[in-house]
Amino acid sequence: MNCLLIEDSELDLDSGRVRLTGRRRRHADEILRACVGDTLRVGLIGGRLGMGRILELDREHLDLEVSFAEEPPTKLPLRLVLALPRPPVFRRLLSTIASLGIESLLVAGTARTEKSFWQSHVLEEEEIRARLLLGIEQSRDTIPPVVTLHRYFESLVADVLPTWIDGRRALLAHPSGDSLCPHDVNAPVTLFVGPEGGFVDYEIERLRGIGFETVGLGTRILRVEPVIPMLVGRLF
Amino acid sequence: MNCLLIEDSELDLDSGRVRLTGRRRRHADEILRACVGDTLRVGLIGGRLGMGRILELDREHLDLEVSFAEEPPTKLPLRLVLALPRPPVFRRLLSTIASLGIESLLVAGTARTEKSFWQSHVLEEEEIRARLLLGIEQSRDTIPPVVTLHRYFESLVADVLPTWIDGRRALLAHPSGDSLCPHDVNAPVTLFVGPEGGFVDYEIERLRGIGFETVGLGTRILRVEPVIPMLVGRLF
Repeated sequence: MNCLLIEDSELDLDSGRVRLTGRRRRHADEILRACVGDTLRVGLIGGRLGMGRILELDREHLDLEVSFAEEPPTKLPLRLVLALPRPPVFRRLLSTIASLGIESLLVAGTARTEKSFWQSHVLEEEEIRARLLLGIEQSRDTIPPVVTLHRYFESLVADVLPTWIDGRRALLAHPSGDSLCPHDVNAPVTLFVGPEGGFVDYEIERLRGIGFETVGLGTRILRVEPVIPMLVGRLF
Repeated sequence: MNCLLIEDSELDLDSGRVRLTGRRRRHADEILRACVGDTLRVGLIGGRLGMGRILELDREHLDLEVSFAEEPPTKLPLRLVLALPRPPVFRRLLSTIASLGIESLLVAGTARTEKSFWQSHVLEEEEIRARLLLGIEQSRDTIPPVVTLHRYFESLVADVLPTWIDGRRALLAHPSGDSLCPHDVNAPVTLFVGPEGGFVDYEIERLRGIGFETVGLGTRILRVEPVIPMLVGRLF
């Protein structure tokens, strides 16, 4: 936790004060070993970064006087389309994706996406939000990426992706891609990363048909967890 | 598991046969649902990749007739020096590092490396090897990276690193690096990634003194797990 994130509703606008409990109080107390008078980095979810001066810290609550003067870091111009991975992997990836500064995430179904994954509780809105907040508090950001779910491939390609790739470079990560993923593209990108086991040929053709170029990462078969930061490091 | 890895000692050189049990047998049986006559991808640890034809598969063992015709993928010209992270993170990173094709790993102690981490059983030779093998079987490689441990920073800098960086580009990943990490360097690299909490100033100076350049990844503070593949994607 590199920044204590505060919800709008927790903040008393008149006094500029906030009372925190639970995990954030414990973090200030047990990890940071902060005391009254110390200042901590804070962020208003959806707003600015700032500092909070500790007015009171005991075993029940943490009272801060906060001010928000700094803009959060800019997002990468990257929209990620990700075939839903197995739930524990998805859970961890949500935090990673948020920490990396990816602007939006579309979670997609493909032929090789296990149907049962869509029943997992990790897809519940509150679960997703909690994981995204962990990611942005790690990277000292205040704005979680926008996450949408789209289970059916046909309508994804027909109705959603044309808008998602409009005016952007559209890349499809595929082991046998035409060429290696480009470096330092200096342009907005929509990147589609497939499921374990890859896309089926029909999907590749459909996506190429609407403007995706397939790009590879060499001959090694990698898990999706390192692939996402690897592609991000390469593209920007 | 994208390749069944076989130890030299398991292979009968005269007959070209091998008998596997345990995890590899179960994988062929339960995940791949393979049958007698099918061929599976195999690799000889430290040697070549190849194919294995199933001669017998039952609840006890898997008998294969194997041949090794293909060279494993080339390694990245990357030596990684990594401040020992907390043990569960280190454990996962070992597999990731192996899967990425990093040629060697030096696990180092720094001022902010928690001393207790050095007592962890994850540093035992057999534990390390097991995690590396998981990584290379994922990426269809046969050669695990060479891993060495070097706990004391002073002798690391004085005695080990000069050889490790000789004739290579030496990069030190540091949040406030002079410039962003370069893309597509096309040269052998030795990369030093610090502990959670970063290097202390003295360490930065010592490492600069022997030829390291500090490079950053922007303003976001990231966990070490995504940072490694991110830097790899960027550098090569």
